[in-house]
Amino acid sequence: MYDLIILGGGPAGYNAAEHAGHAKLKTLVIEERALGGVCLNEGCIPTKTLLYSAKIYDYAKHSQDYGVKFGSAEIDHSFVIERKNKVIKQLVSGVGAKLKKAGVEVVNAQATIKERNEEGFVIVAGDKEYVGKQILICTGSSPALPPIDGLQDSLKSGYALTNREVLDLKQIPKDIVIVGGGVIGLEMASYFNSVGSKVYVVEMMDHIAGPVDREISTMLQKEYASRGVEFILGAKVVSIKDNAVSYEKDGKVTTIKSDYALVSIGRRARTQGIGCENIGLKLERGAIVTNEYGKTNVPGVWAAGDVNGKSMLAHTAYREGEVCINNILGKKDRINYNSIPSVIYTNPEVAGVGETTESAKEKGLDVNVQTVTLKYSGRYIAENEHGNGVLKVITDKKHNNIVGLHVYGSYASEMIYGAAMMVETEMRVTDVQKLVFPHPTVCEVIRESMFLI
Amino acid sequence: MYDLIILGGGPAGYNAAEHAGHAKLKTLVIEERALGGVCLNEGCIPTKTLLYSAKIYDYAKHSQDYGVKFGSAEIDHSFVIERKNKVIKQLVSGVGAKLKKAGVEVVNAQATIKERNEEGFVIVAGDKEYVGKQILICTGSSPALPPIDGLQDSLKSGYALTNREVLDLKQIPKDIVIVGGGVIGLEMASYFNSVGSKVYVVEMMDHIAGPVDREISTMLQKEYASRGVEFILGAKVVSIKDNAVSYEKDGKVTTIKSDYALVSIGRRARTQGIGCENIGLKLERGAIVTNEYGKTNVPGVWAAGDVNGKSMLAHTAYREGEVCINNILGKKDRINYNSIPSVIYTNPEVAGVGETTESAKEKGLDVNVQTVTLKYSGRYIAENEHGNGVLKVITDKKHNNIVGLHVYGSYASEMIYGAAMMVETEMRVTDVQKLVFPHPTVCEVIRESMFLI
Repeated sequence: MYDLIILGGGPAGYNAAEHAGHAKLKTLVIEERALGGVCLNEGCIPTKTLLYSAKIYDYAKHSQDYGVKFGSAEIDHSFVIERKNKVIKQLVSGVGAKLKKAGVEVVNAQATIKERNEEGFVIVAGDKEYVGKQILICTGSSPALPPIDGLQDSLKSGYALTNREVLDLKQIPKDIVIVGGGVIGLEMASYFNSVGSKVYVVEMMDHIAGPVDREISTMLQKEYASRGVEFILGAKVVSIKDNAVSYEKDGKVTTIKSDYALVSIGRRARTQGIGCENIGLKLERGAIVTNEYGKTNVPGVWAAGDVNGKSMLAHTAYREGEVCINNILGKKDRINYNSIPSVIYTNPEVAGVGETTESAKEKGLDVNVQTVTLKYSGRYIAENEHGNGVLKVITDKKHNNIVGLHVYGSYASEMIYGAAMMVETEMRVTDVQKLVFPHPTVCEVIRESMFLI
Repeated sequence: MYDLIILGGGPAGYNAAEHAGHAKLKTLVIEERALGGVCLNEGCIPTKTLLYSAKIYDYAKHSQDYGVKFGSAEIDHSFVIERKNKVIKQLVSGVGAKLKKAGVEVVNAQATIKERNEEGFVIVAGDKEYVGKQILICTGSSPALPPIDGLQDSLKSGYALTNREVLDLKQIPKDIVIVGGGVIGLEMASYFNSVGSKVYVVEMMDHIAGPVDREISTMLQKEYASRGVEFILGAKVVSIKDNAVSYEKDGKVTTIKSDYALVSIGRRARTQGIGCENIGLKLERGAIVTNEYGKTNVPGVWAAGDVNGKSMLAHTAYREGEVCINNILGKKDRINYNSIPSVIYTNPEVAGVGETTESAKEKGLDVNVQTVTLKYSGRYIAENEHGNGVLKVITDKKHNNIVGLHVYGSYASEMIYGAAMMVETEMRVTDVQKLVFPHPTVCEVIRESMFLI
């Protein structure tokens, strides 16, 4: 009998488990695959390992601009993949150690909710049953694989890849078609472009990078187009078969032959096969419905991470898991979805938080928008020959507080949390003006922008 | 007749001038050398340009760890210096353009305060006199050059260098003795170590990096020692002559012959020759005495930047200049010196804000101190083979708010402003726990540390 059984050991699950364990809840985590979930094994971390090697390779290609001369540079893709596996292994074992330290039990099996009885919730995993007074569902998400002609066969033949297989290619493809120009698609486009593949990005919408501020996603697209990535927008993929992707655009069907096709058109909450129906859990569009406290419609059942279909980001999952544990422990806690930053680890990076020009308009907010060049930063100029990075700040006209901030350029990923703090704490422009930012940094442009809005 | 005459066009002066101009004050800036001051011409920016090239070169040396192979790498020092000059030129002209846009007049001459009369303050510059209702002194600082045996001759012969000359060396020295292990000394040690010089750092104190948290400065020292920099601590330099530096340590005098010696033992406020005595300005240890509003003892005379001897950082200077202008305009404003971040741009970088272990102890504060490895960050592991970076958080035991935060590792410079916000706004540990940091980033460790304190 456990105080808490957690289904899934990804970011939501393992982090929640650690907190629960430290709070002396008798906690069990049931994970089918490896601890760390998609994020650690097939997502955030492996991609960043690859992208870092690509960045080093990019540095080599442009090093002459900074006075460093190379004989010749070459990327060893299989070494990169091996190193990626080493990094994952180290981090997965780190998660295991953390859970052990927190006194959390871990079972490696597929879990199904069997029923609710007078003791609690009965979970079947492997050939055993476990009972938890409460349960927390963190089963994450899977790649969306719509019924495209030939897709299933192409996945079997190895022509079509998801985020999982694409990270283990033995060789650099000559050419690759990326179906879906969202975060995953763009990061992989960036990697393959850097290492020398011909890259096509086929996207159904008329722009890449989904909800990213349009001015910035347009800049990103132009940058990668100038490096040879071919973007095909407003195009609907009609088949993925015979080692080719066919798409329809403006009524015309075009076919691209390629070594591989990466399917990255979105992710779906993993709620099938876990027994949601056995306890009457409410789903919407396949995701578990939760409120801002992480509660589902069934008392004693909580859900966090991608499975609730809300934000689908590892860092949201961490916080959602914590919110659930705090509420389980009777410490009221809620999550504010308005101040969650997001990053695309292309080179240059894209990061943003809060409202975009488009979302503000959609909501009818009365805002000021200011786009500022990162060339205001001496460091940016020192480190970027030919850089055209920008920072965009969006403020509420009436209250003069920061409601959105977006960066396209170096260090975007590491500076955006401060902007998230500004949005979260509703800081005003005049508050930020009085802060001292270190010089010379790129983040200084945040402060500079406050005098221009 | 001007509303405001600003003596000095460095960070304090040019930024204040821009704000004054936009606020419709008739403003004159008098600068003896180039706009941008030491920071832009002989400090922050040129060093960062050099250090970035060194970083690229370092990447090349370690690129195999990340799967990128090079034929051979070589740094072209004269190209690096040329590029540095180009970057400076671009930024200096940017400052000029900003001032022009703000309607500020600029005179290129040495300025002296002649007297105060019924109209205001009379300033002599070149062969002209200018009268300002108020004046703002931003004359900055010069390298401290104590009466060390042979130093003046060695400066003349070109053996001894200050921050100015060291940035224009035609060739990479075979060996260089750096006298003073503060920020400037360490950044230059980092550069010359990267590009292949044998570097000696002679420091009078028993530790490097002055007020930096001791645990972190010790790590930095160990790192550079392992790369071949020789640190000689607790040593008093007794002569700099005949192309050699002699120091006394534990009663014994040792002499090091070298191509060059860099003298970087501190900076002194530039108050000589500007006529402080003609209006009765109060000085203390050579610096102009100001209060937190930037006021001097003489009504109508303000001072900002290094010349007040307080913080000697460009970003402090910016803010001090703004504080002066706001107060001149009748908008009460003051600067909080407790939340000013500082950075050392070595590789890895060091950044910190607020109390250190040592300063907290000295003040008798009741604090918790927690040092956390950056290996909690998946990105850190992905990007740092053999990295040993740390983050250190210091909180007030009673109120549980963050009073200090220090980082040794990648991205430290770009993430520290957020920590400065935490210190400035007296955020509590529980407040930071509720913030969402993007994943995977190194800055996530800030959040992680809040659960460990």
